[in-house]
Amino acid sequence: MGSSKGIEKLEKLARLMRYYILTATTNAGSGHPTSSLSATELMCGLLFGGIFRYDTEQPEHPNNDRLIFSKGHASPLYYAMWAAAGKLSEDDLKTYRTFGSPLEGHPTVSFRYVDAATGSLGQGLSIGVGLALNAKYLDKLNYRTYVLLGDSEMAEGSQWEAMEIAAYYKLNNLVGIIDVNRLGQRGETMYGHDLSAYEKRISAFGWETILIDGHSYPAVLDAYQKALNATDRPVMIIAKTIKGKGVSFVEDKNGWHGVALSKQDCERAVKDLGAVDKSIRGRMLEPDAMKPEEVGPRAPEPIYYPSGESVATRDAYGIALKRLYPQFPQIVGVDGEVSNSTRTEIFKEAYPNRFFEMYIAEQNMAGVALGLQCRKKIPFASSFAAFLTRAFDQIRMSQYSDANIKFIGSHAGTSIGEDGPSQMGLEDIAMFRTIHNGVVLYPSDAVSAEKIVEQAAIYKGIAYIRTTRMKTPILYDIHEQFTIGGSKILKKSAKDAATVIGAGVTLHEALKAYDALKKEGILIRVIDLYSIKPIDEKTLQQAAKETSCIITVEDHYPEGGIGEAVRSGLGTVSVPLFSLAVRKKPKSGKPQELLDFEEISKDAIIKKVKENL
Amino acid sequence: MGSSKGIEKLEKLARLMRYYILTATTNAGSGHPTSSLSATELMCGLLFGGIFRYDTEQPEHPNNDRLIFSKGHASPLYYAMWAAAGKLSEDDLKTYRTFGSPLEGHPTVSFRYVDAATGSLGQGLSIGVGLALNAKYLDKLNYRTYVLLGDSEMAEGSQWEAMEIAAYYKLNNLVGIIDVNRLGQRGETMYGHDLSAYEKRISAFGWETILIDGHSYPAVLDAYQKALNATDRPVMIIAKTIKGKGVSFVEDKNGWHGVALSKQDCERAVKDLGAVDKSIRGRMLEPDAMKPEEVGPRAPEPIYYPSGESVATRDAYGIALKRLYPQFPQIVGVDGEVSNSTRTEIFKEAYPNRFFEMYIAEQNMAGVALGLQCRKKIPFASSFAAFLTRAFDQIRMSQYSDANIKFIGSHAGTSIGEDGPSQMGLEDIAMFRTIHNGVVLYPSDAVSAEKIVEQAAIYKGIAYIRTTRMKTPILYDIHEQFTIGGSKILKKSAKDAATVIGAGVTLHEALKAYDALKKEGILIRVIDLYSIKPIDEKTLQQAAKETSCIITVEDHYPEGGIGEAVRSGLGTVSVPLFSLAVRKKPKSGKPQELLDFEEISKDAIIKKVKENL
Repeated sequence: MGSSKGIEKLEKLARLMRYYILTATTNAGSGHPTSSLSATELMCGLLFGGIFRYDTEQPEHPNNDRLIFSKGHASPLYYAMWAAAGKLSEDDLKTYRTFGSPLEGHPTVSFRYVDAATGSLGQGLSIGVGLALNAKYLDKLNYRTYVLLGDSEMAEGSQWEAMEIAAYYKLNNLVGIIDVNRLGQRGETMYGHDLSAYEKRISAFGWETILIDGHSYPAVLDAYQKALNATDRPVMIIAKTIKGKGVSFVEDKNGWHGVALSKQDCERAVKDLGAVDKSIRGRMLEPDAMKPEEVGPRAPEPIYYPSGESVATRDAYGIALKRLYPQFPQIVGVDGEVSNSTRTEIFKEAYPNRFFEMYIAEQNMAGVALGLQCRKKIPFASSFAAFLTRAFDQIRMSQYSDANIKFIGSHAGTSIGEDGPSQMGLEDIAMFRTIHNGVVLYPSDAVSAEKIVEQAAIYKGIAYIRTTRMKTPILYDIHEQFTIGGSKILKKSAKDAATVIGAGVTLHEALKAYDALKKEGILIRVIDLYSIKPIDEKTLQQAAKETSCIITVEDHYPEGGIGEAVRSGLGTVSVPLFSLAVRKKPKSGKPQELLDFEEISKDAIIKKVKENL
Repeated sequence: MGSSKGIEKLEKLARLMRYYILTATTNAGSGHPTSSLSATELMCGLLFGGIFRYDTEQPEHPNNDRLIFSKGHASPLYYAMWAAAGKLSEDDLKTYRTFGSPLEGHPTVSFRYVDAATGSLGQGLSIGVGLALNAKYLDKLNYRTYVLLGDSEMAEGSQWEAMEIAAYYKLNNLVGIIDVNRLGQRGETMYGHDLSAYEKRISAFGWETILIDGHSYPAVLDAYQKALNATDRPVMIIAKTIKGKGVSFVEDKNGWHGVALSKQDCERAVKDLGAVDKSIRGRMLEPDAMKPEEVGPRAPEPIYYPSGESVATRDAYGIALKRLYPQFPQIVGVDGEVSNSTRTEIFKEAYPNRFFEMYIAEQNMAGVALGLQCRKKIPFASSFAAFLTRAFDQIRMSQYSDANIKFIGSHAGTSIGEDGPSQMGLEDIAMFRTIHNGVVLYPSDAVSAEKIVEQAAIYKGIAYIRTTRMKTPILYDIHEQFTIGGSKILKKSAKDAATVIGAGVTLHEALKAYDALKKEGILIRVIDLYSIKPIDEKTLQQAAKETSCIITVEDHYPEGGIGEAVRSGLGTVSVPLFSLAVRKKPKSGKPQELLDFEEISKDAIIKKVKENL
């Protein structure tokens, strides 16, 4: 397509794409036309200039090149591209940003060509790293991954996390394209049109850099050609562009970010473009007919724990992940440089080729997991529960990609002890409970941990598993079943004075309280709430009806935790509910001291039961 | 101190500090001795080598140099330092990591010399940027800020956010020191002992870099001297060190991260050190007797909104911040490159010297706010509510610094409309509710927004204000008072069939429902829950007793939001509670369409009231 005739066609296609960008946004009355216009040649050249290999009839073709719009606000360009490819009509574009249309304000997986939803800036490159890792190390395919980046979003630290990991793993199949249009939302970016500022930083991070005029097709095509020849490094194309390019009266002007043109202005702008050929269509190359080796599931080894043993649930998680891999050969482990603590290490040592060290960079880890699951993997991403908060924005965004990711948070709660509050996950349940269709699981012993890891692997969606640092006694027989949305009644009688609901360490405190109270002739119901979301409403409501009060006990802050989950789960069934939770500022100390201090241990449970006799 | 006698004294002090590090961790049975030993010369040289200026009798001296331990797990070194300065006894060190001791596992503000709690890696440099911005641009003092960094934590993107902002603001009063000891928690770091990998990246980010042997006092002191002469750039000292330095049998060995030596090993290690002089004490220089110009409060202009006007609460927030500045001259604004949307722009335009653009890097923004508040400022940090999730780990950590920060999240909820779910804050209430002693405020009109901004400025702690994109009618007289923990009953009668609780846009939907129901002869109580945390338990419980059900309505996911806050606020008062919240996957559309779709608008309220008549 580098011929003059080829370039002429690309110019026509760009004009058509600009027409679509302008009319779609003006019709919607909102959107980001100027941020789309700046990258038009960059995308038109990539897709229709003989670079991009994609079977448009089969978006799921395993060897299609992938394209992530990290600057998701350029969605008008994204949709214009697919319209120019003949996959959307002008009528489809008129639905842009309207209720029920797959053409949302920022791309989501409602639109069939979108791999991952974007719109929170600085996340696309990590997704691209996940896709590229998959091609190079897992599926061993020759598809390439392209990520369109905005210049403003280069200020996000997550970009640099992705950059260092991409270089570390020598992802020569990954190409970033920065659309340096100088202007952010409210004014100039930190570096304006100084391309060298990006070049210096990015090449220092181990990437090959190519600086170009982003509106010159020969330069654009040449850059992509060079990128095809990368041998051991990812490539960043740093393109100088003009925001609003093609519409003279908005070009390079501040104040036009996220502003659709008025109808009148749009008419003027379309005139500016010159003759638009609506019949022209762009073509992509076909992908090579490669597919990943199919590995079918095999039966895992049986679970084995000698009775009477105490095992930390974090250990059981690591053991389970290793044990279950044959059953789920799509599993991939990623960890934030704490695999010896989260115990993902056990899996890593057994299957080193299925594990990627993500170092201490949780945001990128979450983004990489999202990218991996785009290609049918089941990523298990682990860190301390506390440090998963670092990736909340990425986790939040994953839900809009209908992502299938398992997050594992170890070292939950004050019971970690001496390390102190910075290392204590005390808000992780609240965080993961907000995820639409998310699942929150919290094993109390090794057997339930094993079963829960299996359930999480089966579940198609975002699942969070909370594990515990300290050893806990084994409670369950290895044949016990644990379903998502269930619970276990461990103690029950017709005379239960109260229901005590715990999970993790607090379940063991509840069992200790049961034993002590029983000696005094007081019986309580004890429920293991291993599935916090979804919650076992039926069992909770039955307990509410059969016992005079409910006491929840959790090693977590009260807000958004088990207490509030149970209150919501009770619906309109009335029963006095008491929530024992971490209500005092936590500190260093011995685990048991801290459980006592926070009044979430045996003694506090006994006291609360007796207060309500 | 560069003389041979001076260096001899430093060597003695280092030996003493190593003795303290080893004995304190062995006594505690946990902690990170090896990560402390690697940085001993770096810290001993800084504090006692004639560089650091600090009045140890007055930690609050406004012109003390500041030192942030970003690698907070090196707390044994931190406490050893203060012991060597004569501010902690050996007995004090024996309390390390025990319950109730100010010497926590990772530094917190329980210990008087700590400015900010650390322990979640990659956060200290941002705090340092806040402190340095304050010295250079606000207090105009010559104190310098030092940040001790680990090499592992350089993988965190937040470091690079801090780095680019520090260079952008030409913080020549900021010195970072990277303790490149090669080994992370579970093995080697990405770059091992390749100092040039750090040098390339950091100098590309606009910093002066100095590479040294971190165990050579002449090199260490020379580096600090050079840093004193920085003119327009921050300085990074990149020091090659040995993990476990001084204890031959652990030096540079993997597997010793976060492991205290056994008693026996500790005795061997202490012997390795040679003779320890326990009588020696290190001295710091005195700070220059400078203090910031005192600016007393002045009365603000009165609030003014013409009645009948509709004003977005985000606009009212911006107007309030500008209006209130004379009353609170400690206010500083920081924003993540969206000030034209959050409306912090209004303040910025009036007081450009009190505003720092943080570009799109929310983690660093939160860290900078923490640093600013360490020097008595009242930072107002703003972004879209959705994007504050990016800084959850920094926000979480701030609570352990007893921080005084105000976070403002605009564009809350589905009511932002066409931009789609990536831009919708739907978990921000849940996130901020988890903050211990945090306050969550949510104005529904311009007047309450103004009053809430004032209350937040008065409150000493972390306060979150949720604002709305769309205009809402003014509900309150400008003389109405809004206290933290209060609520407003807007509609009430003796015959109320139900209580409807809303805030923000949903309060207006509740009022529309009231009007419609009233026409049918049905009366409801309507409560404005502008203070979600703390919550007005008394009013809620009274409503529960006086009406047959409670309906909460919120533009937020159900988990951890208003519905669950109200359930918890009701305590053991029984009443059927129905939570209307965002329960379907949100999408692009018109604001009202989305409120209807999610069943959080007038019609859904009316339906729910009627179902319960």
